[in-house]
Amino acid sequence: MGETEFVIEPGRQDIVMTHVFDAPRDVVFKAITDPNLIPRWWGPRQYETIVDHAEVRPGGRWRFLNRDAEGNEYGFHGVYHDIVAPEQVVQTFEFEGMPGHVSLETATFEEVGGKTKYVAVSVFQSVEDRDGMAQSGMQEGASETMDRLAEVIRGL
Amino acid sequence: MGETEFVIEPGRQDIVMTHVFDAPRDVVFKAITDPNLIPRWWGPRQYETIVDHAEVRPGGRWRFLNRDAEGNEYGFHGVYHDIVAPEQVVQTFEFEGMPGHVSLETATFEEVGGKTKYVAVSVFQSVEDRDGMAQSGMQEGASETMDRLAEVIRGL
Repeated sequence: MGETEFVIEPGRQDIVMTHVFDAPRDVVFKAITDPNLIPRWWGPRQYETIVDHAEVRPGGRWRFLNRDAEGNEYGFHGVYHDIVAPEQVVQTFEFEGMPGHVSLETATFEEVGGKTKYVAVSVFQSVEDRDGMAQSGMQEGASETMDRLAEVIRGL
Repeated sequence: MGETEFVIEPGRQDIVMTHVFDAPRDVVFKAITDPNLIPRWWGPRQYETIVDHAEVRPGGRWRFLNRDAEGNEYGFHGVYHDIVAPEQVVQTFEFEGMPGHVSLETATFEEVGGKTKYVAVSVFQSVEDRDGMAQSGMQEGASETMDRLAEVIRGL
């Protein structure tokens, strides 16, 4: 299983996450953007993921829920600014537990020798928001998500 | 006419623009979000502004054109992540002359003693993108836009 790397430089407003998947990029792109596959990898393993909606097109809206064993639900939503298959996805992201705090994620897919380098750059409205996200356990959750995504991709 | 202030700190990824309008915030909010009013203030005076589309709702898309005296057109587009009248607008922004470079703008409207403090925070995908925007003459263009907007607001 590949490593997920993070770059979180002091004073900046972004988090850069990189993961190399052992698959062509059209497969990686499909796994990430297919609403039928999203519940199988999005979020930490301890939660069930429900796709409330995922209009995968420029200007489309998405909303996913994480549900825990007690039935508590945590909502996330955003809009797709751009979808350029299989190269790039630009979207907004908001955790409904912190309304009004929005980030912009740019994901790029680069094929290198049959593998796919996936880079997701998230920029936040402030350094404080960025630091808050970095301190929230995001890296562990995102690493687990990338591991789950790699598993889904291996099965495609 | 009020001053438009900018905060552009070295090494950060944002530009913060503030302008105080001498009007209640519902009037300022309407001037900024009404597609029929946008051509009267959006962009520098030297250009005609055409609203290609402006779906002013969460998940709606917008696209404006600036046309110069020779008929050259410059396109801009994005999506509205959130519209909370008359408090906040969160949207993406892309100049079509630099495709793939996207920023996230959060505009807040705060009423203070009958006036409205308008603050627009734009965050960019990189410090380089932010610096490029700051060096592009953006401040002059944005100040002129704010002056035009103040004129429109006075007439409402």
